Amino acid sequence: MALSGKLYFDGAWHQGEGPVYQAVNPVTGEAVAPLMTSASPRQVELALGAAARAFPVYKNTLPGLRAGFLRACADEILALGDELLDRLTLETGYPRARVEGERARTCGQLNLFASLLEEGAHWEARIDTAQPDRKPLPKPDLRLLNQALGPVAVFGASNFPMAYSVAGGDTASALAAGCPVVVKGHSSHPGSCELVAQAMARAVERCGMPTGVFSLLMDEGHAVGAQLVSAPEIKAVGFTGSLGGGMALYRLASQRPEPIPVFAEMGSINPVILVPETLKQKATEIAQGFVGSLTLGCGQFCVNPGLVLAIAGEGLDQFLASVATAVAEVEAGVMLNARIYEHYQQQSQRLAQSEAVDVVASGKARQSGPGFLGQTHFLRTSASEFLARPELQEEVFGPCSLLVVCESKQQLMQVVAGLGGQLTGTIHATESELASWLDLADLLTTKVGRLVVNGFPTGVEVTHAMVHGGPFPASTDGRFTSVGTAAIARFMRPVCYQNYPQALLPDALKDHNPLGLMRLVNGVKTRDPIR
Amino acid sequence: MALSGKLYFDGAWHQGEGPVYQAVNPVTGEAVAPLMTSASPRQVELALGAAARAFPVYKNTLPGLRAGFLRACADEILALGDELLDRLTLETGYPRARVEGERARTCGQLNLFASLLEEGAHWEARIDTAQPDRKPLPKPDLRLLNQALGPVAVFGASNFPMAYSVAGGDTASALAAGCPVVVKGHSSHPGSCELVAQAMARAVERCGMPTGVFSLLMDEGHAVGAQLVSAPEIKAVGFTGSLGGGMALYRLASQRPEPIPVFAEMGSINPVILVPETLKQKATEIAQGFVGSLTLGCGQFCVNPGLVLAIAGEGLDQFLASVATAVAEVEAGVMLNARIYEHYQQQSQRLAQSEAVDVVASGKARQSGPGFLGQTHFLRTSASEFLARPELQEEVFGPCSLLVVCESKQQLMQVVAGLGGQLTGTIHATESELASWLDLADLLTTKVGRLVVNGFPTGVEVTHAMVHGGPFPASTDGRFTSVGTAAIARFMRPVCYQNYPQALLPDALKDHNPLGLMRLVNGVKTRDPIR
Repeated sequence: MALSGKLYFDGAWHQGEGPVYQAVNPVTGEAVAPLMTSASPRQVELALGAAARAFPVYKNTLPGLRAGFLRACADEILALGDELLDRLTLETGYPRARVEGERARTCGQLNLFASLLEEGAHWEARIDTAQPDRKPLPKPDLRLLNQALGPVAVFGASNFPMAYSVAGGDTASALAAGCPVVVKGHSSHPGSCELVAQAMARAVERCGMPTGVFSLLMDEGHAVGAQLVSAPEIKAVGFTGSLGGGMALYRLASQRPEPIPVFAEMGSINPVILVPETLKQKATEIAQGFVGSLTLGCGQFCVNPGLVLAIAGEGLDQFLASVATAVAEVEAGVMLNARIYEHYQQQSQRLAQSEAVDVVASGKARQSGPGFLGQTHFLRTSASEFLARPELQEEVFGPCSLLVVCESKQQLMQVVAGLGGQLTGTIHATESELASWLDLADLLTTKVGRLVVNGFPTGVEVTHAMVHGGPFPASTDGRFTSVGTAAIARFMRPVCYQNYPQALLPDALKDHNPLGLMRLVNGVKTRDPIR
Repeated sequence: MALSGKLYFDGAWHQGEGPVYQAVNPVTGEAVAPLMTSASPRQVELALGAAARAFPVYKNTLPGLRAGFLRACADEILALGDELLDRLTLETGYPRARVEGERARTCGQLNLFASLLEEGAHWEARIDTAQPDRKPLPKPDLRLLNQALGPVAVFGASNFPMAYSVAGGDTASALAAGCPVVVKGHSSHPGSCELVAQAMARAVERCGMPTGVFSLLMDEGHAVGAQLVSAPEIKAVGFTGSLGGGMALYRLASQRPEPIPVFAEMGSINPVILVPETLKQKATEIAQGFVGSLTLGCGQFCVNPGLVLAIAGEGLDQFLASVATAVAEVEAGVMLNARIYEHYQQQSQRLAQSEAVDVVASGKARQSGPGFLGQTHFLRTSASEFLARPELQEEVFGPCSLLVVCESKQQLMQVVAGLGGQLTGTIHATESELASWLDLADLLTTKVGRLVVNGFPTGVEVTHAMVHGGPFPASTDGRFTSVGTAAIARFMRPVCYQNYPQALLPDALKDHNPLGLMRLVNGVKTRDPIR
């Protein structure tokens, strides 16, 4: 099926009634066929209505069937083959290895949630058995099971055209939870969105899922998104993007008559802290790793290391020299779109030209010619300047990082204490040196979702123990992760059954535990049946 | 220690710098000594500062020590003896058995969270072990542990002067999580608040907990609460009360530069559905149970059965007759304070005088004289009127309930579909009849936090499987319960440790599992050590 520029909702493809637009090839700056259409308010209503109708059916599909559906989505995405990979490259400028990797991650994510469902872990079943003879009053039988929240609006991110997009982590976890999903795709890669939606549509049909369980709506502006977040049918929002975008959705949702949770992952500057003795021993090695992390994907990651903290001294001098040499060799990289590129130019220049900041090294400048090519910058300031100027903490989305030179451990701790919430924090320290910096590690845990030791923040594993999220402003609600199996908790809520007849209870709550679940029975985790 | 009218913060008792006020005995309507003082903005700041300073110390106290602290709180509350029980009765008009029961529940709650900590279940430890040989990139070691969110503001409820007040469920779960708590006590029972705070203060001292871990602030208005919810030191809010109060706090919190979660439990009308055949068989028995639940505590419960749904017919006629007889005998009951009483008078009269409503029965009217005495009312309307008038869904806080007479199962389902979120929903049905009404039960699960069969919603057990919360407007976030051990999840957030040195990891995450925790290791729940 070739690209049509259409939208998918209510089980069919529709020509959008809103304005048309085109994707742009970031390598050439040129528009790419075909014309893409966007959704009108009426069409958004139709998608919402279909999602609302799908909910009572879809929430009750057996987990095994939902698992099959998620696996079918992964299979259908793989079956798109080169057409998808080529389109992704065309629309993002990402190299082949990156788009292949991201496809693998996206499919792996869908399959991981399928496994979670097959295991029944999402239910978090809890049972407190009755005590009919308790005085003064008998204790009833109480059984808790997680249930789907309702239709979810998912906003695709520009920088992960698959893994945080149409069939990305938010979609996979919401569908796994039993929630229909209405995706607002990112207009930076609309063809890729359509292709993935074609795969999803085939999976919906193949698995006999209710019409309306999945929709793809598009537009180039904010109208579709605002309508979705304000709609009474929508019960939660998943978003990955900028602080401005995330907070706009959060404010909108909080002003609804019925407020709903918005899970916005809004990026951060991801401090990397270099502890003195370790830095002295491994300055060159750390510098190499750092430049690799900084320039990966042209710095277009929420977990890009935008801040380095270290104490002045011999080790730092050596680190600086190594970074400067390596950065000078970095070619200008393709950025995703004109907006990101222009914003990066502005923000990195603003930072570089601050009187408090000097430029340690810059990568190769762009050649004249077309395309959105971002130059790498490594900048430096002092801790006292950094503490005095909150604007130096603002994220610069792209391959730019700021070193804050501290005079002492105490000053470094002061800088960390003044940081806003972060997705990640990294410490480079040998085990013995870390042992004497545990106060720093402890302080960092209050600031971050993930604490990395002797590594770099880029590279987010999709596993059970991952946390991708962090205290504000890294995300709107640091109690949740958007990556990994724990992400499903965002889209479920508990329901308690009191004195419900045994035979009519959901299988997950029946005494004999027919599904073999791990359950919390009278406060004890067990797979045993209740006698 | 006699009542002083003082506030407790930063480890000491302080004369409030704000206006003074007095508690009122709801039986006599007379003011009660002593004069109570309220907090000035400066004093609120001091309490917040102390809480913020306590946080980094308190969050790292070993769970066993925190458990000991919670148990000490319970012991000290019990040690207040009759002084507390007498004051509670004086300030609330509740009978002795009720205040004794509530004290038992409050202490039981503190001890239950202590057990949870001793078991380590609050950590929800997850471990994904490294795969150093994975291609193309090695997989790091990832370990997740829940951590305390930060200082929490807790608002005491008027109707549970202990169990949802100074040392109630919100306080117990936040303290268990490792969060310092600043309580805004309810001005309807300020002396009881002070006594419980005296017990808490003794427990803080006895257990060597950091100054600032617990504060009690008071005022008669909204200024202290608004300042707390807007303060950057506060990271979450627990509230039980009215829809208006809860939403005011929610809106305030969502407008902060750094938004924070507000867990407001705002009550509901708790539909009780009487299924025809069962009703025919047990009309009198159900009627007796219903009137008992309706009038318990003079109807001043969030889970008071304010709505009854049934289908016209013989069973319903018999139920109505029985309820009418029983209600006519009910004495006017003491309500908690002038505001609740006046509001109840207004709201119940508004409902009774609606042209769509008729009065089935009323309890005995108040005698002339002092005190806040609420009369019981049982009202009736038709399903078509109820569907046409959204105002009939508004909660009337007190002993008033509205029967909606439906013509058919289909119409009854339509009424349920049109309901807002509820804390509870109840169905009276034999097992065989329920089996043919599973569509109703399924619909109800989308509306409620707790589904009760053949019982009544009043009586909220404090256990592992309890859900006290529900879709909006029952609470601001139906994904959480404010009662039971699951309530602790509101005040924790996950942190992931990546490639952290084994010897320096928190014990809960160490390979050899020194605490014997149930952990999720590579996707499998186990207590086994990692070899």
